[in-house]
Amino acid sequence: MTDSGQDNMADDLTQLSACDAAAAIASRAITARALAEAYLARIAQRDAAVRAWTYLDAAQVLAAADAADAAPMDGRGPLHGVPVGIKDIIYTKDMPTSFNSPHFQDYFPNIDAASVAMLRDAGAIIMGKLDTVEFAVNGRRAATKNPHDPSRTPGGSSSGSAAAVADAQVPLSLGTQTGGSVIRPASYCGAWAMKPTWNAVSHEGFKVCAASFDTLGWYGRSAADLALLADVFGIADDAASAIDTLHGLRIAFCPSPVWDRAEPATQQAIKTTIAALTAAGATVDTLTLPTAFDGLTAAHGVIMQSEMRSAFRAEYLAIGDALYPELVDIMRNTAGQTRADLLKAQNLAAQCRAAFDTLAAPYDAVLTPSTPGTAPLGPQNTGAATFNRIWTLLHMPCVNIPGLTAADGLPIGVTLTGPRFSDRKILQVAALLGPKLSPPPV
Amino acid sequence: MTDSGQDNMADDLTQLSACDAAAAIASRAITARALAEAYLARIAQRDAAVRAWTYLDAAQVLAAADAADAAPMDGRGPLHGVPVGIKDIIYTKDMPTSFNSPHFQDYFPNIDAASVAMLRDAGAIIMGKLDTVEFAVNGRRAATKNPHDPSRTPGGSSSGSAAAVADAQVPLSLGTQTGGSVIRPASYCGAWAMKPTWNAVSHEGFKVCAASFDTLGWYGRSAADLALLADVFGIADDAASAIDTLHGLRIAFCPSPVWDRAEPATQQAIKTTIAALTAAGATVDTLTLPTAFDGLTAAHGVIMQSEMRSAFRAEYLAIGDALYPELVDIMRNTAGQTRADLLKAQNLAAQCRAAFDTLAAPYDAVLTPSTPGTAPLGPQNTGAATFNRIWTLLHMPCVNIPGLTAADGLPIGVTLTGPRFSDRKILQVAALLGPKLSPPPV
Repeated sequence: MTDSGQDNMADDLTQLSACDAAAAIASRAITARALAEAYLARIAQRDAAVRAWTYLDAAQVLAAADAADAAPMDGRGPLHGVPVGIKDIIYTKDMPTSFNSPHFQDYFPNIDAASVAMLRDAGAIIMGKLDTVEFAVNGRRAATKNPHDPSRTPGGSSSGSAAAVADAQVPLSLGTQTGGSVIRPASYCGAWAMKPTWNAVSHEGFKVCAASFDTLGWYGRSAADLALLADVFGIADDAASAIDTLHGLRIAFCPSPVWDRAEPATQQAIKTTIAALTAAGATVDTLTLPTAFDGLTAAHGVIMQSEMRSAFRAEYLAIGDALYPELVDIMRNTAGQTRADLLKAQNLAAQCRAAFDTLAAPYDAVLTPSTPGTAPLGPQNTGAATFNRIWTLLHMPCVNIPGLTAADGLPIGVTLTGPRFSDRKILQVAALLGPKLSPPPV
Repeated sequence: MTDSGQDNMADDLTQLSACDAAAAIASRAITARALAEAYLARIAQRDAAVRAWTYLDAAQVLAAADAADAAPMDGRGPLHGVPVGIKDIIYTKDMPTSFNSPHFQDYFPNIDAASVAMLRDAGAIIMGKLDTVEFAVNGRRAATKNPHDPSRTPGGSSSGSAAAVADAQVPLSLGTQTGGSVIRPASYCGAWAMKPTWNAVSHEGFKVCAASFDTLGWYGRSAADLALLADVFGIADDAASAIDTLHGLRIAFCPSPVWDRAEPATQQAIKTTIAALTAAGATVDTLTLPTAFDGLTAAHGVIMQSEMRSAFRAEYLAIGDALYPELVDIMRNTAGQTRADLLKAQNLAAQCRAAFDTLAAPYDAVLTPSTPGTAPLGPQNTGAATFNRIWTLLHMPCVNIPGLTAADGLPIGVTLTGPRFSDRKILQVAALLGPKLSPPPV
């Protein structure tokens, strides 16, 4: 790409990965303004079909791009001039944050979330806000459509974040995950996405849902793009891995306790991935989790809802039953969850975290489904977090690898996970596996 | 109190507990304005000596009090017209939040923390912001003096929050605890204080330090005041206790693994408390913790510092080595802590949480020191969180009971703790024990 002149590239700047775009700006092959204009043009063309954005001010974006172009070359950060979209539950000091809630349409915290501050420090252009399921939980759905089929959901809750990156409307975006809100939309939309180990990145400045689970995640055009943001956010394993081939790697396939929820598309995706790994010289063992792990899905539900009663109490006191009905039910604890239930679930989660670290330690990565199948018909149904909740509860890092297409013509992803704080190692394996699953460029 | 006329009470409105003040306003015995004026007068008289406040605007407070007085009686909340002071790391939409950092003197998030929003919903008057150790950790000390002896520290990090309540400058205040930042200053200043079970109250909207530990806490004039705020924040045990006498209660004295750090003042305070309990007909057993608990103090340090590297990364990227030296050391990880160290510490913490819940279950409350001794000479030395860190790490609820005076003439508190989510039960025991430790009113 860096061999091309700016005029040549202008036609397809939206096809650059974030890494390539950053390199092109750094080498002066393109300007931040040209890149921003390309994305704004793409959005203008596609927004009516995809509806990913809740806030986008072209003049604001272009002013930021011009400021980036005017900045001295010295001291530029790794994302200098690269646009990033932000899920609309994450605070941005110069844009509103609505949570896609009818009660917060005029909400405008004048501070940046820690993640957004780190992006700005790295030179990123904050492109705008991306639609989300209400409060990143339930209630109002995002207006966003799946870019591959407007009758399908993009998944939730980071609906706009996944769709915008998958549709080349922005090269990078931020999402959040408390159940499956980063990985599920990535699978449905066909995007690269990463949910790091819990609390490896500050959650400060996005709406708290369940403090034990809430995790910032991000979307990009490639594994290298995910790694670029991992650098910005300071993600580091204890020991740096230098994995440059799949040959000889030990991979575990973990069906997880909910494998019976895998539809044919997911069964096929796992089968194809295992075949690709084996063909590349990796060994693939099956890792069956102990029966204690069978309780994790229920434990996730108990912890999430119990913690939501703390997290949303202020909103419930202010807004009451005008909040959406599922949230009101949780606030009223119609399920009758006790503190003892919560502690039992927390104790099980802690025990299984330690156990999984040990079980997964012999492997270079663990393969598991991203979603039960491809994107269901939307918009009310945003799909299921069935295969994500366990890993979110366990705090394990997860990467969604896109590239596969199911029999129905829709994208489907697979997840690589592993022990806590093996984030970089998993990214390296994902970077090697990704091209084996993607069709060759046309 | 409700028998007295307003004129009679005006002289000593600052001596009312929050509960009595709320009741007096509700019965129209006093006005919110009269109460606010009394506290403003007290502050004007005492501020030069105590220096608890970082932000206080008398006109703003009186306007809020007048609005409270003008509000219809119908629909008033339980704190209607009662002033509450806020630690200056907690966001208030109409007041700055400086973290007592030289880098954030003009910081003014325009949103309320969840805790502040709940206070406003209950009708509280937000009185102003209270001084803190920088970022509630280390670095710059609060300007606050111990109200009992200006040469002594009020303790940290919630220095102003404890001192202001102990000095009758406000009836209630909010603090936060990641190590011992609520309970330690309460012991040194002679104030009632509560740190509830972790995540029973939303931490949204105060500076994150260590997400696994950060807990909102509060100060009041009595156990009933602490319970009043517990109501507002929705603190509930699974089963309501109705403890109306100490007689027959089973109390454990837990020396904790750091008992060798107890100075004579603390040894005497525990001895006096055990004698009071026994005299009242309670049985007091000694609860010696298993040896696994010996590692908790070190585990607390590893988790806190590791999580601070996530929590302060944005600030470190922006400000760099101009942050205070101890924080820079943590950001650079000069201690060489690994992710493996963090996981080992997290696993130990989780194991001991479950174990302590079981060990403490047979008791109505667990007695343990609040501080190694009385307040040391300040201002640089803010005392030690030695006896608090274990309980913060374990997520257990803690109440500091004031009233005792050590041989040096300074206040010293004792802590009641217990299993997770036994907050209300502990408060009930504390309410009965408190009067046994306090000197009779003059």
